[in-house]
Amino acid sequence: MTSMLSQVYRDYIACLNRQDLASLGQFVHDDAQHNGRPLGLAGYQAMLAADFQAIPDLQFTIALLVVEDPFVASRLDFDCSPRGTFLQLPVRGRRVQFSENVFYEFKAEKIWRVWSVVDKARIEAQLFT
Amino acid sequence: MTSMLSQVYRDYIACLNRQDLASLGQFVHDDAQHNGRPLGLAGYQAMLAADFQAIPDLQFTIALLVVEDPFVASRLDFDCSPRGTFLQLPVRGRRVQFSENVFYEFKAEKIWRVWSVVDKARIEAQLFT
Repeated sequence: MTSMLSQVYRDYIACLNRQDLASLGQFVHDDAQHNGRPLGLAGYQAMLAADFQAIPDLQFTIALLVVEDPFVASRLDFDCSPRGTFLQLPVRGRRVQFSENVFYEFKAEKIWRVWSVVDKARIEAQLFT
Repeated sequence: MTSMLSQVYRDYIACLNRQDLASLGQFVHDDAQHNGRPLGLAGYQAMLAADFQAIPDLQFTIALLVVEDPFVASRLDFDCSPRGTFLQLPVRGRRVQFSENVFYEFKAEKIWRVWSVVDKARIEAQLFT
């Protein structure tokens, strides 16, 4: 089960990297929650659509993957250029590197609950020093 | 192995909650790294000593634990009152709630490499809204 979940997760990330929101329902549960917000699949799609709009060169790179069914923990690395403000920071097209440490709980082989933390302090260090 | 690593990690957190830095060497490798910094055991102890000084009521609560040997991923919840500035934020004794999503790689059953992200944005939301 654990190796299957690992493959499902890698397929999910490939889907994001294609910006293929039409296929997101293969990976994200209808009742998905993100950091306590009950987004559902439609809200999750809208969140990602806004991310792709704000960060046209957004690519997700898996740096660490720890799987214990029904949980996946992933460290994602980013190297991208958010267009405007990002996490309330005035990035304005600058290229920045940062990571996200994120936990997923799966239900029926789909992402159900997500707990994400983005390394905002690392972006601040690139902008303000 | 996975369940053993889970127990070692829980014992490590209990050690931190006793602020028992003298026992830290049971859990932390001599060559420990934290977010890319080669702290070693002594540096790791110094980092925690500074945390305990800055946050006298610091307690670590495991909210999520995902274990796949040699990795542990943990979401830690905090409810505490940092005395001065914390993550460059003017907390000054206010009680704040936040989480840390953190990955550990173990070597010889000890914490060797750590990748931690603290949810700074959540603290900002409590201070500035």
